[in-house]
Amino acid sequence: MATADPGVILLLTCPDRPGLVARISHFIFERGGNILDLDEHVDPVEKTFFIRVAWSGQGSALPLSELQEAFRPLAEEFGASWSIRFTGRKTRVAVFVSRYDHCLLEILWRNSIGEFASDIVLIISNHPDLGSLAAHYGIPFHVFPVSRDNKEETELQELALLEENDIDTIVLARYMQVLSPFFVNRYPARIINIHHSFLPAFVGSSPYRQAYERGVKIIGATSHYVTEELDQGPIIEQDIVRISHKDTLDDLVRKGRDLERLVLAKALRLHSGHRIIVNGKKTVVFD
Amino acid sequence: MATADPGVILLLTCPDRPGLVARISHFIFERGGNILDLDEHVDPVEKTFFIRVAWSGQGSALPLSELQEAFRPLAEEFGASWSIRFTGRKTRVAVFVSRYDHCLLEILWRNSIGEFASDIVLIISNHPDLGSLAAHYGIPFHVFPVSRDNKEETELQELALLEENDIDTIVLARYMQVLSPFFVNRYPARIINIHHSFLPAFVGSSPYRQAYERGVKIIGATSHYVTEELDQGPIIEQDIVRISHKDTLDDLVRKGRDLERLVLAKALRLHSGHRIIVNGKKTVVFD
Amino acid sequence: MATADPGVILLLTCPDRPGLVARISHFIFERGGNILDLDEHVDPVEKTFFIRVAWSGQGSALPLSELQEAFRPLAEEFGASWSIRFTGRKTRVAVFVSRYDHCLLEILWRNSIGEFASDIVLIISNHPDLGSLAAHYGIPFHVFPVSRDNKEETELQELALLEENDIDTIVLARYMQVLSPFFVNRYPARIINIHHSFLPAFVGSSPYRQAYERGVKIIGATSHYVTEELDQGPIIEQDIVRISHKDTLDDLVRKGRDLERLVLAKALRLHSGHRIIVNGKKTVVFD
Amino acid sequence: MATADPGVILLLTCPDRPGLVARISHFIFERGGNILDLDEHVDPVEKTFFIRVAWSGQGSALPLSELQEAFRPLAEEFGASWSIRFTGRKTRVAVFVSRYDHCLLEILWRNSIGEFASDIVLIISNHPDLGSLAAHYGIPFHVFPVSRDNKEETELQELALLEENDIDTIVLARYMQVLSPFFVNRYPARIINIHHSFLPAFVGSSPYRQAYERGVKIIGATSHYVTEELDQGPIIEQDIVRISHKDTLDDLVRKGRDLERLVLAKALRLHSGHRIIVNGKKTVVFD
Repeated sequence: MATADPGVILLLTCPDRPGLVARISHFIFERGGNILDLDEHVDPVEKTFFIRVAWSGQGSALPLSELQEAFRPLAEEFGASWSIRFTGRKTRVAVFVSRYDHCLLEILWRNSIGEFASDIVLIISNHPDLGSLAAHYGIPFHVFPVSRDNKEETELQELALLEENDIDTIVLARYMQVLSPFFVNRYPARIINIHHSFLPAFVGSSPYRQAYERGVKIIGATSHYVTEELDQGPIIEQDIVRISHKDTLDDLVRKGRDLERLVLAKALRLHSGHRIIVNGKKTVVFD
Repeated sequence: MATADPGVILLLTCPDRPGLVARISHFIFERGGNILDLDEHVDPVEKTFFIRVAWSGQGSALPLSELQEAFRPLAEEFGASWSIRFTGRKTRVAVFVSRYDHCLLEILWRNSIGEFASDIVLIISNHPDLGSLAAHYGIPFHVFPVSRDNKEETELQELALLEENDIDTIVLARYMQVLSPFFVNRYPARIINIHHSFLPAFVGSSPYRQAYERGVKIIGATSHYVTEELDQGPIIEQDIVRISHKDTLDDLVRKGRDLERLVLAKALRLHSGHRIIVNGKKTVVFD
Repeated sequence: MATADPGVILLLTCPDRPGLVARISHFIFERGGNILDLDEHVDPVEKTFFIRVAWSGQGSALPLSELQEAFRPLAEEFGASWSIRFTGRKTRVAVFVSRYDHCLLEILWRNSIGEFASDIVLIISNHPDLGSLAAHYGIPFHVFPVSRDNKEETELQELALLEENDIDTIVLARYMQVLSPFFVNRYPARIINIHHSFLPAFVGSSPYRQAYERGVKIIGATSHYVTEELDQGPIIEQDIVRISHKDTLDDLVRKGRDLERLVLAKALRLHSGHRIIVNGKKTVVFD
Repeated sequence: MATADPGVILLLTCPDRPGLVARISHFIFERGGNILDLDEHVDPVEKTFFIRVAWSGQGSALPLSELQEAFRPLAEEFGASWSIRFTGRKTRVAVFVSRYDHCLLEILWRNSIGEFASDIVLIISNHPDLGSLAAHYGIPFHVFPVSRDNKEETELQELALLEENDIDTIVLARYMQVLSPFFVNRYPARIINIHHSFLPAFVGSSPYRQAYERGVKIIGATSHYVTEELDQGPIIEQDIVRISHKDTLDDLVRKGRDLERLVLAKALRLHSGHRIIVNGKKTVVFD
């Protein structure tokens, strides 16, 4: 049900053709909406159209489902992938962690001061270590130890828990397990990972060690959607920090920690703010 | 006269109200235009609407003046400040310099490889030093020595030269003279300056010396439109570089030189690409 | 008392003259020390010498006081300001806060994972709000409400508490009170503040509002030692983040929050690591 | 022959042991030198010692060769790799180019204003295109067209020219030919290349296209010493620039151009200033 002034966000992509903005903005105007923010992009190579529109004053106070139904014919005519959301409805997020606390703390703290349009609903870990941090922020913490033998079964239990809790988005906050393709495909473009390198440099394990041994002068971190292929999913956000010969491997880990938590937090903020459209192996980020 | 596919850019600002995007995009659609890039912003404090739209396929091949006439009633209804330009028509630029070559070289070189939608039509200097650089790039170079006694008269001669050459935009590439209010007001929001500090820190003269004496850890450069008040005009672009106690005043000058030329060049690129709307003392930059 | 391999750090500044490095490194060599890190700087304008040397293998296992006594004649000959510390001895820190949690959380968390060579001994606040955060990290939290009438008396109580606890360094983690000159002069170059602007731009109150109204394209944060003059102390560290016309005042506050906590944390890390020498109104930072 | 105040720079690396700084600084003091800048680093993993010392006041006015002879016994005792140079003696540089002008222009311009401690002695190209730019700066320009059939012979001619001109350092300023191992091994750690990616990401050809297709949010450039293995040499300097989905492949090329020229110029400045020691596959850069 709509609140007094819900705020609506449309994300849409389709083959480009003349008139798309006119048709969409007319649809909004007809229903008494006032566009607050519109960002449009046409991929000049693939001739694909991308748009994010945020509007207010949905005066007719339509429920979301009716608004979606009203828009459906237009979207079908365009051959579009699309979503319409009310800004009041928060993204329901589960965070997966192992033993490192920095990314989890960053997300819980930012969420506590309202930086994300998210509810952190629950935390899943393969280790009990971070339970007290979860408790401090009052978030349910579930431990699922993972071994070679129980991986498939554990994932099924986790999936059941996620569905029970109506989870929309999963954040891997330095979760040290690789999810199975079966799991990944249940949440397409809805599992956000942080990799502690400047992808595509240093894929796989021990990227800081790899960076240290190669003698790079800059290290990075990359947040991306998880796909079946390890570290190959669409990149959402990256950032870097300068290092020098004075930095030991421990210094790289320390400096990288700051990148990881900031980059992952930014990715979640963009995702929860409905600012990302996946475009094949890439993303369009309306920032 | 329109070329085969001219490309059109509209910049517009007016008080916000519902339906603006719908009306503008419908106007474009009616004339067979295909929107390539649309960026819209509403100032939530002042309730002001800003838009930049670029479109192609102006199939009707209207001359620019007719397109402008056709749009005028809409703009008047909105109470808008606006401009419509064809991308094929380059901004006619005059560069003012004194003795430093770095900003001039940067602009001439970038222009020579087509980075700006500009024609550098002429160069004006109060010193003859940079004449050979101008000659290398084949740009007319005019020397107007300035003294206390002849400033007013010199400005009148310069203005005459600018008008003769149908100059649209003036770039002060480390020009070491202060233009009179009379001159400035002839080119509102069309004179681009580079100040060698991170404004509003270190206004006025010798900003590197001021920065050195204050012991800052970062220095900057600022490109802004010139207004009557020194170093107070709307800021277009800024950038910074890190310094340390090891840097002498000469090092600050050296590091700042790189900032100055890059920041000024970026400002000119944004301006020539019709990506800036002045909003009182600030700018909206559609980058 | 020295541990097995204490690690020693010398910070020293004096008028420059030939032979200083030879004399100092010979002093270390004589006592069986092995230099791990030596960074030396001569101010070419003021002809002042600055050095930081870290060495290990203080095999003779001298107590610190004896090592200091042994070095004193050399320092007096040079006319030097200097300090010698064992790396094992942590800086004893008191943090002053008001209601904002971001800087305090950052410091407590980093301290908990061992990033600082510090003990956070106690927290002082003029508000009770952050008590539970302090409790989570197990740090004593003292509330001293401050009003116009009790400021002098409160400061005396605070100073007594600091002395009781042998506090070496005070961190103002967005503490919203101005300390009196009397207080400040008790801890010269040992009170670290974070100012939420790129000093010297936007001194005083509401720097984000000032930045918003000026229309800058970059905002910053500055950590500095506190002196009697507000926001004029020697700068330790600064950093910046890019903003645009899309950013509201709230966005500036949000983006600035990240700068403040990172810049303050870095300043404390440098200070606790004995990497800073104050040089008049400036700092020499051996990073 | 020494000038009145030559300035001397020592670069040295050897296995670490106590007393190295004391011995070296004593050597300098004995000869009346005053240390202006000393930076020392010990690799804690490999226990290797690195030092750069710059001193003035070589009052005895020794010729360089005598100073080197005097130092040799010390260096041999340490088992060191080392060099001693007078700052007055400029590095003799040859620049190799193909058709892109941006890196060459950057180097010629910076050299013309005295930013490098270098003489740009000559330019070698496999195309005639940049001859007029060379002429503007008055640098001899030699064209050696390269084909599959004449590569070996051409390299021999180029080597002869380099030797005739007593060239010390070669800069590949977007030179689009791969040098043979034979050639490379003649100038170990003295050929500086610029690669237009953030190595080790996107080795080989078309790195901007690779970056565009992978959808990274940041691109980079890397300057490194050339070794036999393509793009694998010790990295001197890297820098990055942020990109977004709005950037076309042409935009990446344009943005990358600025990185390439700045990163290559910085590498040459560090190299000519005797600030780099190669440490296996890595570099120690005293900046």
